[in-house]
Amino acid sequence: MFGFEVDPWQLRWNELDAEQIPRTESLFALSNGHIGMRGSLEEGEPIGEPGTYLNGLYELRALPYAESGYGYPESGQTIINVTDGKIIRLLVEDEPMDLRYGRTLEHTRTLDLRSGTLRRTTVWESPVGHKVRISTERLVSFTNRAIAAIKYEVEALDDNLKIVIQSDLLANEPIGKFAKDPRLAEMPEAPLVNDFATSRNRWAVLVHHTKMSGLRVAAGMDHEWELPSTGESFVRSEGDLARLTLAAHVPQGRKLSLTKYIGYGWSARRSVPAVRAQVDAALAMAMEVGWDTLLSEQRSYLDDFWRDADVELEGDAELQQAVRFAMFHVLQAGARGEARSIGAKGLTGSGYDGHTFWDTETFVLPVLTYTSPAAAREVLRWRHSTLDKARNRASELGQFGAMFPWRSINGDECSSYWPAGTAAVHITADIAHATAKYLNATHDKEFEAECGLELLVECARLWLSVGHFDGNGRFRIDGITGPDEYTAVVNNNVYTNLMAEQNLRDAAAVCSRNPDLAREFGVTVEEIADWEIRAERIFLPYNETLGVHEQSEEFTQLKEWDFEASKDKYPLLLNYPYFDLYRKQVVKQADLVLALYLRGDAFTPEEKRRNFDYYERITVRDSSLSAWSQGVMAAEVGYLDLAYDYLVETAFTDLHDIHNNVAAGLHIAAMAGTWLGCVAGFGGMRDYDGNITFAPRLPPRITYLSFRMLVGGSKILVAIDGDNTIYRLLFGPPVTLKHHGEEFELDGHPVTLPIPPLTPHEPPAQPIGREPYRRSELR
Amino acid sequence: MFGFEVDPWQLRWNELDAEQIPRTESLFALSNGHIGMRGSLEEGEPIGEPGTYLNGLYELRALPYAESGYGYPESGQTIINVTDGKIIRLLVEDEPMDLRYGRTLEHTRTLDLRSGTLRRTTVWESPVGHKVRISTERLVSFTNRAIAAIKYEVEALDDNLKIVIQSDLLANEPIGKFAKDPRLAEMPEAPLVNDFATSRNRWAVLVHHTKMSGLRVAAGMDHEWELPSTGESFVRSEGDLARLTLAAHVPQGRKLSLTKYIGYGWSARRSVPAVRAQVDAALAMAMEVGWDTLLSEQRSYLDDFWRDADVELEGDAELQQAVRFAMFHVLQAGARGEARSIGAKGLTGSGYDGHTFWDTETFVLPVLTYTSPAAAREVLRWRHSTLDKARNRASELGQFGAMFPWRSINGDECSSYWPAGTAAVHITADIAHATAKYLNATHDKEFEAECGLELLVECARLWLSVGHFDGNGRFRIDGITGPDEYTAVVNNNVYTNLMAEQNLRDAAAVCSRNPDLAREFGVTVEEIADWEIRAERIFLPYNETLGVHEQSEEFTQLKEWDFEASKDKYPLLLNYPYFDLYRKQVVKQADLVLALYLRGDAFTPEEKRRNFDYYERITVRDSSLSAWSQGVMAAEVGYLDLAYDYLVETAFTDLHDIHNNVAAGLHIAAMAGTWLGCVAGFGGMRDYDGNITFAPRLPPRITYLSFRMLVGGSKILVAIDGDNTIYRLLFGPPVTLKHHGEEFELDGHPVTLPIPPLTPHEPPAQPIGREPYRRSELR
Repeated sequence: MFGFEVDPWQLRWNELDAEQIPRTESLFALSNGHIGMRGSLEEGEPIGEPGTYLNGLYELRALPYAESGYGYPESGQTIINVTDGKIIRLLVEDEPMDLRYGRTLEHTRTLDLRSGTLRRTTVWESPVGHKVRISTERLVSFTNRAIAAIKYEVEALDDNLKIVIQSDLLANEPIGKFAKDPRLAEMPEAPLVNDFATSRNRWAVLVHHTKMSGLRVAAGMDHEWELPSTGESFVRSEGDLARLTLAAHVPQGRKLSLTKYIGYGWSARRSVPAVRAQVDAALAMAMEVGWDTLLSEQRSYLDDFWRDADVELEGDAELQQAVRFAMFHVLQAGARGEARSIGAKGLTGSGYDGHTFWDTETFVLPVLTYTSPAAAREVLRWRHSTLDKARNRASELGQFGAMFPWRSINGDECSSYWPAGTAAVHITADIAHATAKYLNATHDKEFEAECGLELLVECARLWLSVGHFDGNGRFRIDGITGPDEYTAVVNNNVYTNLMAEQNLRDAAAVCSRNPDLAREFGVTVEEIADWEIRAERIFLPYNETLGVHEQSEEFTQLKEWDFEASKDKYPLLLNYPYFDLYRKQVVKQADLVLALYLRGDAFTPEEKRRNFDYYERITVRDSSLSAWSQGVMAAEVGYLDLAYDYLVETAFTDLHDIHNNVAAGLHIAAMAGTWLGCVAGFGGMRDYDGNITFAPRLPPRITYLSFRMLVGGSKILVAIDGDNTIYRLLFGPPVTLKHHGEEFELDGHPVTLPIPPLTPHEPPAQPIGREPYRRSELR
Repeated sequence: MFGFEVDPWQLRWNELDAEQIPRTESLFALSNGHIGMRGSLEEGEPIGEPGTYLNGLYELRALPYAESGYGYPESGQTIINVTDGKIIRLLVEDEPMDLRYGRTLEHTRTLDLRSGTLRRTTVWESPVGHKVRISTERLVSFTNRAIAAIKYEVEALDDNLKIVIQSDLLANEPIGKFAKDPRLAEMPEAPLVNDFATSRNRWAVLVHHTKMSGLRVAAGMDHEWELPSTGESFVRSEGDLARLTLAAHVPQGRKLSLTKYIGYGWSARRSVPAVRAQVDAALAMAMEVGWDTLLSEQRSYLDDFWRDADVELEGDAELQQAVRFAMFHVLQAGARGEARSIGAKGLTGSGYDGHTFWDTETFVLPVLTYTSPAAAREVLRWRHSTLDKARNRASELGQFGAMFPWRSINGDECSSYWPAGTAAVHITADIAHATAKYLNATHDKEFEAECGLELLVECARLWLSVGHFDGNGRFRIDGITGPDEYTAVVNNNVYTNLMAEQNLRDAAAVCSRNPDLAREFGVTVEEIADWEIRAERIFLPYNETLGVHEQSEEFTQLKEWDFEASKDKYPLLLNYPYFDLYRKQVVKQADLVLALYLRGDAFTPEEKRRNFDYYERITVRDSSLSAWSQGVMAAEVGYLDLAYDYLVETAFTDLHDIHNNVAAGLHIAAMAGTWLGCVAGFGGMRDYDGNITFAPRLPPRITYLSFRMLVGGSKILVAIDGDNTIYRLLFGPPVTLKHHGEEFELDGHPVTLPIPPLTPHEPPAQPIGREPYRRSELR
């Protein structure tokens, strides 16, 4: 679609279509989880949406209600474009370099997944005929959290040229608007107020604060350069702009080379001198380390990552590329967040206001847990740091325990439509689930004591206030919203009930492991018993006649949706009212099917297939969160081709812009789903209470698949081909696993096990117009 | 509470407490259903909320959404204070007459329910000691729809005085703000733009249009006066103000008397000259008729009304007063609406933005139907005139037939919180119900042909699109909201299902009566059969274990509300989130219990009592719409004291300001409920399919009750005492009635029937803190 070259370790784009620029800015975004920079051109324009983000930094905006209600949040948070340091403007003999003018003879951009840099080569002829080659490379450092750097080189190709370079720090950069879509952000105009500006020699710093939220942010830059001949430089700073100007004579065939180091710091509490000092220090260390070392540290960090997290795949080279691209962005989203969260778009765009939702814990954290556990831990540590807010929110809403926000940057609820926000209480169970999974995979006792137990306990407490026993002794959870946003405020959503049950059991388990600590949090034997009895009696509505579970109580009694009438009206939420969607059997995204995966231990194989078949026919995938889990369950129930299609749809969500909104940022959860589609789908990996099992089976188009993952503190490698699976222990103590139901012990010796044959079944059809995405041509 | 004098035909208030002024403005409001004027003091200040309203005239305002959705209305309508013509300012020797200064020696205001006027006498001593007596009387004419008039007299009590009177027309009058409450209106500031102003001699006209909605409104005034001595007068007009000034010497003991005639006209389509001409003509006729004739016509109109509608009651004089006060305001709300609706507040205040809701059709129209059927017909005619909007709304929301707005002035939906707005589809059944009731009571064939059949048919069609048959052949209506707003978006609300069933049957019946006309609206035999089969198979969820109906499916499975914890937190909606309210067994207002009354034919007596007992314990009456129907059902199941208490609560809703918001306007539906509490409660009147039955039985405190009502085109009088009921036919052909289950024919001879004894039962308790309102002392 975009014409990316297929390459196992790179994403390279040779085209220059101005229409595509907003999309490529997201795809080429660099981030270390703390700083994010969209892949905009150094020269500043043409541009889609400028974007430099700092994790956790936000501006407030009022949430208006024509009819207000008790407990509605009055202000929301939104991510902002901070002082932009990636701008380096170029003048060639007085002509601003701008791809929209003159002629571009060559233009290549390459995201290198091993070097962790974005490279670019442009050969440009100015309107009056001067030719230059611009070569840039940039990184957002994994090893120096506060630092980004850009190497910018200009070569005079056909003449001696007068070249001027302007390297900017620009605050309150104008931002464009996307089409009106409730899912996109409303970015505030000019959110920054200048506190301080200074510059000297090659260096400048700007300090601002946000107007409403009052957060302080400092941005600094320092430079090195090599001039081929004479040149002059000066630096100036004023309010919203600091600029280094470098004017030089570049002889034909020679290069001017500039290295720009950009440092960021922000704080809710520290003073102007303090955040300035922080940025000065970061810049000083970057200058001391230097460009070459930054590059080599970056590569070395990624070497470690790929060693732990790479997924190798044969038979579909483009899919291999997409899988690595996905893992790279999952890493970028979480690598150095350090007690901050991961937004739905990571730090690649302003979509969804930069908020974090349940998909971070449910989809992204498991992937990080099995591959980069420290990053997973930091997200959970952030949730733990917001526990007081979650307890207050529960109390405000008449509940006890913790009630985490549906969408947030700072831990306060930002959802203004409560039926599809605050009512989706499963997010609290999802956070508990991610916590338990992390503890099972890592055996991280320190985190368990510091955060894990308290998180599990406070989450579990919520279910006792939200749920209750009915006259038949069933434990019900009424009036809530499950993952499927085309129903809301329902009773006994199976997904929510099963995840709550898991939370109750995990809380009981962690308290039994840590009785003294549990007592510190006021947990009594009686409370544990209360959790256990509710977990035992959880109500799972089931339709005996159809032989399927109800997504929520009475769901299968609802009117059928007219899929024929809606076949060209996707996504439905933009063409139908909630009033009609909620009343009918139409599913936006995997809900019961997600439960079949996450809580597969609660269903028989026969139930799984019947449920899958029933819900597959009515699931429209108007959310990017859906395809991977449908694919994982398709693989489990034996529809391997369908599973392959869903993996493809997931993996190419952003690369092929399937939802037509990649310009607003990447779908980080779909990136994580790509890994899960490989590992849980074709690897058949399941993790119930920390017991890791596999049931590998490849679809015809994939001839080989291998992946690595953490199991109870040990690391294993799983390599699958059409006939066999080889398991290897990479480090750590021996582990007990299962292969297609058979338990085995994995120690220093590889274990090779055969893949049992599959009885073929005819898969169910999707709603008309919602068949899985398929690439027109396999490469 | 307010210290009104108890009088059978007047509401008189002798106090002057500035705090009470906003409340009395609503209670003393005059209206003919076309023009409404709050009971503010002529001198303009002190004031709560100025208010002169024209039925149907509104301004638009944007409805904001932090998260928007398909089909959400983008603009709302709101009633506005139009050019105020009731201001007559007085200067006594240069001192503006203002009750907040000087001394008020006497101050009496009297709403006279037989003359249809508001009278006032004030004896005021100015700060420098000049004494005057001011006597005023005003009316909004029932017989001259476009006219209001005020007689204003000043008597010099202790000296010869220089008196100046300024009689104003004032547009864009400043308005105060009430406390923040989602149920109150947000009135636009200065909504009017001047088009034209003119004046001559004693006469002036101002023409304006509304800024956003572009509606044109003209206000005019003309005057007559009698001077006791010399005087001077002039009139001026400019933009937003026209003023007649009258300066006179008033000798001690003499009076200056001014009569002001005020005319109004508005139009969405007519030009400035046209609406001006309309007002000029109305004023000319008013001057021609003169004050005394206006007064006598007003009294004569009311004599007719009381002859048809009076309810007499012995044993509780204050209740007698309250019942007549209620009937007077019900009449005022609807008398001359003429193809306009009746807002929840009538034309007495700006609460609820002046919108009309379901309670107009469900509570107000039956009362008008039985007593002033022409007024009921006009409201239904208005609904009929908005059918195209209702069909378009249905289509926008993916339905067919008509889908009437939850709240509106002009027929377009103004509800911005759809779960308690658009989802409350019962309003469409309620409109159908009111239509059928009107047709049954009046046998108005002309209306049936012009509007009634089409209304019933288009409403019935909605149920085929909103409902469906489930696997068990039950006709379900899912994902809607019933009358109780503490649950929303539920399945199979019994009230909604029964009202829809009635609509389906009534549509089938009216089409059978008018086969040719039905064909014109595309009704086929098959369609009628479709309606009938759905009516037969309507699903009414029932809990076998408890032996009660479910308010909506699974309602009795929900968690119990903790009434002890909420006992001082009423109304709950201001202290608890919908999230918590919706999930629990707590009922804002009669829902199933209302169905027990309106569709009592669908329940056995035993079911009624069990249902009443169950829901009584969990109904908190956070709505003024609830008490009367609880009282009516309490009477039916045999709790006569409780029924009395609920009638009292209903009747004093506004007189005692029980909901603490009478300042924003009267609760017209509670006024109507007062009549229903007498007639359906203690008269036991039921109307199923036009078959009128009675089961009279008085509570101990009421010794005698009589009422009049229309039955199938005839008029009857029912008079009840402790032992017997006397039925009389007042006019029209003989009618067949039932008395406590026994059928009898009523012709020219009165029929006296004994009241069977009642087996006493212990009534259920209400939630703590929500016992019925009881007056501290009976007068």
